[in-house]
Amino acid sequence: MDLNTARETILQMQAKASAYGHVTSLLSFDGQTTAPAKTAANRAHTLAILSEDIYKFATSEEYIEVLDFLQEHRDELSDNERRMVWLLSRRLRFMRSIPMDEYIEHERVLVESGEAWREAKANNDFGHFAPYLEKIFATVKKFAAYVDPDMDPYDFWLNEFEEGLTMEFCEEFFGGIKEKIVPLIRRIAEKPQVDDSCIRGDFSERTQEDFAHYLMDVIGLDKDHVGFATTEHPFTTSLGSHLDERITTHYYRDCVGSSMYSVIHEGGHALYDTGSSDEFVYTELDGGVSMAVHESQSRFYENILGRSKEFISLILPKMKELWPEKFADVTADDLYKAVNKVQPSFVRTEADEVTYALHVLVRYELEKKIFHGEVEIKDLPSEWNKLYKEYLGVDVPNDTRGVLQDVHWSDALIGYFPSYAIGSAYGAQFLAKMKESVDVYSCIEKGDFAPINEWNREHIWKYGSSKTPQEVLKLALDGEPFSIDYYVKYLEDKYTEIYGL
Amino acid sequence: MDLNTARETILQMQAKASAYGHVTSLLSFDGQTTAPAKTAANRAHTLAILSEDIYKFATSEEYIEVLDFLQEHRDELSDNERRMVWLLSRRLRFMRSIPMDEYIEHERVLVESGEAWREAKANNDFGHFAPYLEKIFATVKKFAAYVDPDMDPYDFWLNEFEEGLTMEFCEEFFGGIKEKIVPLIRRIAEKPQVDDSCIRGDFSERTQEDFAHYLMDVIGLDKDHVGFATTEHPFTTSLGSHLDERITTHYYRDCVGSSMYSVIHEGGHALYDTGSSDEFVYTELDGGVSMAVHESQSRFYENILGRSKEFISLILPKMKELWPEKFADVTADDLYKAVNKVQPSFVRTEADEVTYALHVLVRYELEKKIFHGEVEIKDLPSEWNKLYKEYLGVDVPNDTRGVLQDVHWSDALIGYFPSYAIGSAYGAQFLAKMKESVDVYSCIEKGDFAPINEWNREHIWKYGSSKTPQEVLKLALDGEPFSIDYYVKYLEDKYTEIYGL
Repeated sequence: MDLNTARETILQMQAKASAYGHVTSLLSFDGQTTAPAKTAANRAHTLAILSEDIYKFATSEEYIEVLDFLQEHRDELSDNERRMVWLLSRRLRFMRSIPMDEYIEHERVLVESGEAWREAKANNDFGHFAPYLEKIFATVKKFAAYVDPDMDPYDFWLNEFEEGLTMEFCEEFFGGIKEKIVPLIRRIAEKPQVDDSCIRGDFSERTQEDFAHYLMDVIGLDKDHVGFATTEHPFTTSLGSHLDERITTHYYRDCVGSSMYSVIHEGGHALYDTGSSDEFVYTELDGGVSMAVHESQSRFYENILGRSKEFISLILPKMKELWPEKFADVTADDLYKAVNKVQPSFVRTEADEVTYALHVLVRYELEKKIFHGEVEIKDLPSEWNKLYKEYLGVDVPNDTRGVLQDVHWSDALIGYFPSYAIGSAYGAQFLAKMKESVDVYSCIEKGDFAPINEWNREHIWKYGSSKTPQEVLKLALDGEPFSIDYYVKYLEDKYTEIYGL
Repeated sequence: MDLNTARETILQMQAKASAYGHVTSLLSFDGQTTAPAKTAANRAHTLAILSEDIYKFATSEEYIEVLDFLQEHRDELSDNERRMVWLLSRRLRFMRSIPMDEYIEHERVLVESGEAWREAKANNDFGHFAPYLEKIFATVKKFAAYVDPDMDPYDFWLNEFEEGLTMEFCEEFFGGIKEKIVPLIRRIAEKPQVDDSCIRGDFSERTQEDFAHYLMDVIGLDKDHVGFATTEHPFTTSLGSHLDERITTHYYRDCVGSSMYSVIHEGGHALYDTGSSDEFVYTELDGGVSMAVHESQSRFYENILGRSKEFISLILPKMKELWPEKFADVTADDLYKAVNKVQPSFVRTEADEVTYALHVLVRYELEKKIFHGEVEIKDLPSEWNKLYKEYLGVDVPNDTRGVLQDVHWSDALIGYFPSYAIGSAYGAQFLAKMKESVDVYSCIEKGDFAPINEWNREHIWKYGSSKTPQEVLKLALDGEPFSIDYYVKYLEDKYTEIYGL
């Protein structure tokens, strides 16, 4: 093999991996959007057959040989090629470290556990899900040891989902959250609650759909490459490459805020992915680099921009046009307060901007303790409820709205939650940096998102996955280290004004 | 290899083919329904990569070996197994007869020709499309000779799309159409035209969508397994198996009849596919056997049932509910006449029940003549217009609404059109047989489609592709041979009454 052949081969193999990714993501997207109710087994049948092809391809001799060759010649590669090879090798190392029968058994358990979780949640029956959860935690812990026996298994999984993330970082980060945000919530709770009745009422799904398309235009999504669909739990997905991105939403008739902010949130994810440099298409470098950087963008558009006074002034006329009676007498200030109401609750996905990180904190602490034998699965519900009481001051009414609320654990996404909160904090620091060169809020007020999107594209999006999350941060922040202070100050300033603290 | 291993292997291989079929159909379905505008190249990239996998799989040594083995042991197989092996062998024979480079070149030309056809149609520029058409006709003629050098190439392609179909049959069939339908149209033209203003006006897409869902329920589609989407040119597709079927429609604001009857038509296709016996799932025997039998079902629901007086009485109250002002004073008789207006036109897909077969006849005659060197590609537009004048009495205004109107030829679907007309005639004969045991029109009037669907399931649908089209006909008609007379009589009776001939 010579270097140019190896280069060509590895590009072809990534193109093939993109094609496989395209169809598996499309099957999932279809299942979550337009597919008829009882067609999941049919999709599972197809997926099982494709998975075999994909596994064989991803662990093939040819693949291993090319990667080994490129590793040996890494000094002759460009930075982007080295990054590509590193990402591919990391995945290959994972795949080869797990005995195939254990991998397949794990995949099988996950199909069953998803079903068990849905049933358990529907019936408020943690006991039904507990054996699966037991198995999943044990398996992922074992897998971590297979791949990297010298690493703490929770650190292993944090790093799998957010390259470079450690418990050490999380401890400091969540320590700061606890120290600063818990008191902020207490101070807010002492003040009179804001009135959010203007976003509650009866909003037809079709008018909300019109509103969603309007919002996609407002934030500058390229609808030639970003599709839109409805689903149960909103998500964003890339199909094959950043050239075909899909966002989804879910409508609640009784609250216009839910779909509205899910569209802006998912739109932020889509902006990030589709902003990836075109040269990365059909390679590992295409699309956003990590969950935390992704959330830094989605929550930036949703909260920092979308829940700003200026954004509210911008969109209120449209809302008055779509729902003339409902919004006739609503002022920008009314709407601004309504969409920024802070109220500790049980459910993460319904949480406001201030309490959100505490929901994540609960999950982080519990995952860490389970991995280190400090909490047993059977005690999860009571531990969960205890922490919700401690951090959020709420009494969880049942496991359905408590420990069973999230799908993640049933899908072995353990070590994944922290990135949600960390991303929010990244976003606040990006805002401060962006403001040095962009008049952010006056852009929003004018409905001119181009300078904002351009800044993000130039400093974050264009890199795709070609830099590590830490490198992206460093580049975007001109070398300034990450600090939680921006996030805390952003929240303190905003909510001090809203609640008159 | 022993017989049981071969049986098991061939089932696994069909399951794999179903999985490949699932994802390629899903890519196409997605492209035609929800995908953003500029994502076709991204899908083509994925499809090209998968096609290589699929080609290799479909011509693999293992595949050939198993099929050969089963062919040798055909006497030990069940009827269904023999049919399966025959269908698979036919496809394999086709794939192996075409040199791979010519096959790939042909596929490449088809991607380009689709684009060229769209441009040519948009710009009324037949010359732009002609070189592609020249190439496509030459290639399919050559392919026919590769596979079966002793067969007339047009017979070859008729038989490819409709197993058992020959020019001999078509000559007799279309001879009957010319002899009986052309005079019928002339007689209708002498009478005062019916008024179809009640189905024309301004019908919002969303209300039409509600109506579409209502119609799906009326004809008895199982929405747990039949999905619904909107598209440019309505179609139906199975995804992986008959367990996941999708129908599509397109709304025209100015005419409620278009989407309404496309939903019923595509619904007929979906009923047929989903009525396939469950034992055939993930094999070649799953889903409808041929285009003509498919059209016999789709056009049965659309025209014979859907354009009957009884159906109109059944659905008019719903239309009055959805469009109270528009239909306030409309009687069942008004609506019945409106949806059965006969008017020779230029465009096949907009044609009424009576003139439809003549549109197909034009295409049949031209295809046959090109294959036999009696018409040159460059003369197609003038030949087309001449035949439209002769059979339908209309002057085609331009090639966009003339020879360029259909997508089929750009996709090498040559020999495919006749099945559309033949299927309509099958349907009329099925109706006569069905009436022997089912009180068809009183069922429709009551909105009780179950006995009708049950008859079709028992006599047609359940067989899937396990019988040849001719066998299905024979079984459904209790051995009575096909005759065009039922179709002619059905049309003559119906339109004699409507137009007072």
